[in-house]
Amino acid sequence: MLVLVANLGSTSFKYRLFNMDSGDCLARGAVERIGDDESRCSVTIGDWSDTMVMPVPDHGVAVAACLQQLTDPQHGAIRDASEVAAIGFKAVHGGRMSGTFVVDDDVLDAMAEMNAAAPAHNPPYIAAMKLLRQRFPDLPLVAAFETEFHRTIPDSRSTYAIPKTWTDEFQVRRWGFHGASHQYIAERMAELLQRDDAKLISCHLGGSSSLTAVRAGQSVMTTMGMTPQTGLPQNNRVGDFDPFALPLIMQRTGDSLDVTLQRLASEGGLLGISGRSGDIRDLEQAADAGDTDSQLALDVYVEEIRRHLGGMMVALGGVDAIVFTGGIGENSRRVRRGVCADLESFGIVLDDAKNESADGEARLSSDGSSTQIWTVPTNEEWVVAKRAMKALGRHAT
Amino acid sequence: MLVLVANLGSTSFKYRLFNMDSGDCLARGAVERIGDDESRCSVTIGDWSDTMVMPVPDHGVAVAACLQQLTDPQHGAIRDASEVAAIGFKAVHGGRMSGTFVVDDDVLDAMAEMNAAAPAHNPPYIAAMKLLRQRFPDLPLVAAFETEFHRTIPDSRSTYAIPKTWTDEFQVRRWGFHGASHQYIAERMAELLQRDDAKLISCHLGGSSSLTAVRAGQSVMTTMGMTPQTGLPQNNRVGDFDPFALPLIMQRTGDSLDVTLQRLASEGGLLGISGRSGDIRDLEQAADAGDTDSQLALDVYVEEIRRHLGGMMVALGGVDAIVFTGGIGENSRRVRRGVCADLESFGIVLDDAKNESADGEARLSSDGSSTQIWTVPTNEEWVVAKRAMKALGRHAT
Repeated sequence: MLVLVANLGSTSFKYRLFNMDSGDCLARGAVERIGDDESRCSVTIGDWSDTMVMPVPDHGVAVAACLQQLTDPQHGAIRDASEVAAIGFKAVHGGRMSGTFVVDDDVLDAMAEMNAAAPAHNPPYIAAMKLLRQRFPDLPLVAAFETEFHRTIPDSRSTYAIPKTWTDEFQVRRWGFHGASHQYIAERMAELLQRDDAKLISCHLGGSSSLTAVRAGQSVMTTMGMTPQTGLPQNNRVGDFDPFALPLIMQRTGDSLDVTLQRLASEGGLLGISGRSGDIRDLEQAADAGDTDSQLALDVYVEEIRRHLGGMMVALGGVDAIVFTGGIGENSRRVRRGVCADLESFGIVLDDAKNESADGEARLSSDGSSTQIWTVPTNEEWVVAKRAMKALGRHAT
Repeated sequence: MLVLVANLGSTSFKYRLFNMDSGDCLARGAVERIGDDESRCSVTIGDWSDTMVMPVPDHGVAVAACLQQLTDPQHGAIRDASEVAAIGFKAVHGGRMSGTFVVDDDVLDAMAEMNAAAPAHNPPYIAAMKLLRQRFPDLPLVAAFETEFHRTIPDSRSTYAIPKTWTDEFQVRRWGFHGASHQYIAERMAELLQRDDAKLISCHLGGSSSLTAVRAGQSVMTTMGMTPQTGLPQNNRVGDFDPFALPLIMQRTGDSLDVTLQRLASEGGLLGISGRSGDIRDLEQAADAGDTDSQLALDVYVEEIRRHLGGMMVALGGVDAIVFTGGIGENSRRVRRGVCADLESFGIVLDDAKNESADGEARLSSDGSSTQIWTVPTNEEWVVAKRAMKALGRHAT
C-alpha cells in the first residue's frame, strides 16, 4: 500500500512516497515554478535523481509529471500510477473541520471559510485539490489538517478573551499548527523514554516555529493561535504582536490594514529585526562579525522561545523532556544553548559537549539534569501518511 | 510639602493628597460625571466625607472644586490651595518620553504622538493638562508615565519582530504599563525580604492586570506591550490576540478596523468570554451557581496568568517571591489558588489556610515553599507623588 504525501505552495508541489507496510520512504521530489514555461520537476529514488524542465501550467500537470517520474521504467519506484492508494495533504486550516478527511465539497467549504485567516495557504490548496479531483477522479485525496493534534487542548487555553459569538460562530480560537510534527515528536519520545505518560515540550524550530506542550501523548498547549502568524517570531513573520498598535502604524505609513498585515507577514520576524536576513545561519555569521541587529534578532528569538517554554513548564507542572526539532532545532547549537541557559534551578541542564557534537537523534542533557533534553529529527510526512490511511479506513503498520 | 496625585478619565478626576514629609495620605476624592449638569464631587479627609453635586463643565472646574473641598474651613486638609506644590499625573503613554516630566509642550506633543495607541487615555489627559496649565499657571503639573519603571527591560524582551524602522521611528515596542504599581511592589518587597537583589514576579491583578518580572529592583519583563490592551485578558479588554484574525472577523461582522478594535477593547476580556460580567466577583458567584461560561472566563484568566508567570520564571532563572496586588490580587483567594496550583515541583507551595484568611499585607506560602508567596496592597499614587517631587528637583523622605 503506497501513499503520496503532498506539501503544496501556490507555485510548488513537494512530495514523499511511502510504503505503508514497511514504513519506508520510497521517493521524494518536487515540482517548482508551477505556471512557468520552465518548471522544474525533480525526484530522488534511492541513489537515482532526475530533473525534468518542462512547462507545468497547474498542479494537475505537476502531479502527472510526478507520477511519470515515479513510474520511470528503469529507475522508478512503482510500475503503475494506480499503485498509489491516496494523496495525503499536509493541509493547514480547516477551521471547524479539524482532523483528517477524505476531500469532499464540505472539506473544501470549511477551508474556504478560513481563507481570510490563512491567505497564503488555503486558496492554493483549495484550487489544487479541486483540479486534482477532476483530473484523477479515482485517486482519493485526503486532507490531514495541521490543527488536528491540538484538538485536545482544553478550552481554558484555546479560548481568546473575545465576544463569545466570535469564538462559537467565526471559529476564532487558538487552533495551533505544526500538528503533524509535534505528533511525531510525541510518538517518538514515548519510544525513546519508554513511557507514554511523559510531560514534554516539543520545540519545532525552523522556517516557521512553534512550541507544543504534550502530556501523555496529547497536545495541551501550543504557541500558534488562530493563524500560523502568531506565537514565536518566524523568519520573516512577526509572531505575537499587539493588534492595537496597527492604527498607529497605518497612520504613519499610510498603508491599508491588508498591506500592513502583509508586511508583518513578509518583512517582519528575524528579517525585520536584523534588517538583513531571516535565515538563522546568516544571522549567526553576521552576529559573530559584530552586527548588533543580527545579534538582537537571535536574542529576541531565543527570549521568545524561553518565554513560551516557561509558560508550558507551568502548564504541565514540570517537564520530563524538552525536544528540539526542525531545521533550527536540529542544527543550531547556539539557539539550543540559549534556550537552555540559566535553568539549573529548574533541573534543566544542557551538556555543552553533547550539544556541540549532536548529529541526528541525540540526548543533550547532562547526566544530572532531571529534565532530559533531546534533539530528534521530525517526520511530519509519515504522520500525514498514517492519518491518510486511517481516514481511508485502512491501517498502517 | 504637599503633592496632589491625579488619575484622569475622560469624565472623571480622582485624586489623593500626600504630605511628602510624613508620607501620609491626607485626603482622597473624586469628581465624576464631568460635563454633566449634576457632577459629583466627593472627598474624604480623615473621618469627614463630603459630596457636592454641581455642574462641572471641564477638568479645570473639577480641580477648582477639589481645591475648594480640600480647603474647607472646618474640615479641610489645607488652609490655602497654594500649599499644593504640584499635581502629579499617573499618565499612560508618552512613547519616546518614558519617565517623569514637568508638563510642557514637548511632553504634550509626545503624548499626542501616541494617541492612536492609547485612544481612551491620552486625549483626555492632554485636554485636561492643557486646560489646567491655563487655569492654574502657578501650579506645576508633572506627568509620571506608566512606562517609566519598564525602561530597564532589555531590548531582547521589548523588541517586536517588526520592520526595524517601525521600532526606531514609530516607537512600536513592548513599553509595558502599571509601572507605578510594580515599582511600589518592588520597593516594598525589598523591605519585607530585607534584600534588594531578589527575583520577584509582581502580579497586579485588578480592573486591568499585568505581571512584571523584577530583578534587583528593576523591571526586566512585563506582560503589556505597545498598548495597555495586550498581555493578560482584562475585565472587558481582550489581552493577547492574533492580529491576523482581524480580516476574518471584519469580513463576518462587516465592521471597520476601528470598530473591531473598539469592540475588542470593550466587549472582550472576561466579559466577552462569560457573556455576563467582567467583574471577577460576579464570575465567581455565577460559576459557583453552575454557569460554565463564567467558569471558563475564570479559567482563561488564571491560565493566562500562569502562562506569563512561567515565562517570567524562566527569564529570571528562578523566583524568590511571587506577589499578588490590585483588587483581584489582594482579594480573590480563588484566583491566587488557581495561579499557584500544581507548582510544587518548582518549589512554589501556597498555604491554603493563609490564603483563605489573608487580609492586607501577608505571606501566603507554606513554610516549606522555596519561593515566597505574598499579597501586598499597592500604592501607585505614593510612587507618582515621589516621582513628581524628584522631577521638581525636590526629594521626598
